[in-house]
Amino acid sequence: MKIAWIGTGIMGAPMAGHLMEAGHDLVVYNRSKKKAQNLVDRGASWAESPAVAVDGAEVVFTMLGYPHDVEAVYLGDDGIVNVAAPGTILVDMTTSSPSLAARIEKAASARGVRTLDAPVSGGDTGARNATLAIMCGGDRALFEELKPLLDTLGTNVRLMGGAGRGQATKMANQIAIASTMMGVVESLIYAEKSGLDPGAVIEAIGSGAAASWSLNNLGTRIVTGDMEPGFMVMHYLKDLGIALEEAKAMGLALPGLALAEQFYRSASGTGWDRKGTQVLYEVIRRLNGM
Amino acid sequence: MKIAWIGTGIMGAPMAGHLMEAGHDLVVYNRSKKKAQNLVDRGASWAESPAVAVDGAEVVFTMLGYPHDVEAVYLGDDGIVNVAAPGTILVDMTTSSPSLAARIEKAASARGVRTLDAPVSGGDTGARNATLAIMCGGDRALFEELKPLLDTLGTNVRLMGGAGRGQATKMANQIAIASTMMGVVESLIYAEKSGLDPGAVIEAIGSGAAASWSLNNLGTRIVTGDMEPGFMVMHYLKDLGIALEEAKAMGLALPGLALAEQFYRSASGTGWDRKGTQVLYEVIRRLNGM
Repeated sequence: MKIAWIGTGIMGAPMAGHLMEAGHDLVVYNRSKKKAQNLVDRGASWAESPAVAVDGAEVVFTMLGYPHDVEAVYLGDDGIVNVAAPGTILVDMTTSSPSLAARIEKAASARGVRTLDAPVSGGDTGARNATLAIMCGGDRALFEELKPLLDTLGTNVRLMGGAGRGQATKMANQIAIASTMMGVVESLIYAEKSGLDPGAVIEAIGSGAAASWSLNNLGTRIVTGDMEPGFMVMHYLKDLGIALEEAKAMGLALPGLALAEQFYRSASGTGWDRKGTQVLYEVIRRLNGM
Repeated sequence: MKIAWIGTGIMGAPMAGHLMEAGHDLVVYNRSKKKAQNLVDRGASWAESPAVAVDGAEVVFTMLGYPHDVEAVYLGDDGIVNVAAPGTILVDMTTSSPSLAARIEKAASARGVRTLDAPVSGGDTGARNATLAIMCGGDRALFEELKPLLDTLGTNVRLMGGAGRGQATKMANQIAIASTMMGVVESLIYAEKSGLDPGAVIEAIGSGAAASWSLNNLGTRIVTGDMEPGFMVMHYLKDLGIALEEAKAMGLALPGLALAEQFYRSASGTGWDRKGTQVLYEVIRRLNGM
């Protein structure tokens, strides 16, 4: 199959690689060409722009940064929605705004171009090992058609509803994590302040009702003082901003999310944009003069 | 061994039963005798008061309600700290205040009475199946002496530090759950408001970074509209109150905990004291006029 891949960063590059390994014919584009070089060395064609990449492709995948990047690539001058041939399939795997995904679908379908929003969860490890969860929004027939390709990239590939519902599911994921992280870091700080060994506390409570992926993975990193990113504060803060904006548009108050977002903003303001999300621990410690 | 068990409610009764089954000689007391009847029918002796129960016992277990119950039974007129013979071991398994546990230990050791705080996690199921996590605070030699008895009641029995450190660990457990529950219910409400099927969302996100015991167990109950108690709001609210009080005494601000406590207080004020903690979902839905 002739596939275009736009956005070959830490997530996109290994994902595009899996499609090449599966025998597909790949054209790649990335803002910085350097990050696509490895794929080009392995046989992918290089395109000088998204519009060039899309030309002649049956399916186009995008894995970009912020919603404004998605908007520019899809709907801007020379946007791929406008230059793609009717019948082309556009799959946005960026974590982006549900309402933007719906807007893109509307503009695309007016031109006979089909779209699927398909954000992922599982991080760079999931991208490398093709074990991502992929949450899709769009037409069922299109989803079924794309499922074999998506199964090349992940292990938990689901259609959640129409256009934007993949993005909305990813937001539900990020919302659950936000307050869970508050609970994890407050629990460990309380433990520390109480004179307990936080590592021993994780062992004592980490398999019962307090158990969470965040406690057992990021909590363990916190205990060893490891603030290196599995997922960076700046990227998480982007997602929390989208979630709050969408909630606002729906007239929905989510006080736990709003509170967590403020403390992640504090992490960013402190200069911790490139630390892992577990740096929330340091934010709440500082809040308490620790 | 001659053992006294004070407090034979939904947790205490099956726990005392395990000790009887292990061959120990049991004396029981409970405020309402009815709840001890089954144990008496199975061979336990009935005592008319805590002081009578303690008379001649080598080890005394208590599983009570509120910290003021613990204070009354241990330190009140005829309190067991004052009537127990020197050398008696007192084990409080109530979830209670860390600082009260330390006060009890101090008063007891002045009389040559030994104490261990040993709150549990795992609920009535864990109590019945003897799979509780038991978090202990006290002297190491005493802990080692009691470990075989505690292993009769649970599967994850740990010494966390000196007097009160078992209770502090249980508080860390409840603090982690508080904000995790906020994340779970806000995630599911966002999903619902977005037109997603919340059950499908749990399947999509419940095994990745958003995973938690709360999401996969209580979230699933929420989706089916089941608000019956695994753990009651009124009991959880007691624990959150203790945690906030202890944090205040340490000069520790825990904004996520404080926020969650307010919404659980709202659940209580709405008349949902005897609902399960997952009723937080209904609190946040109401907050949004849903």
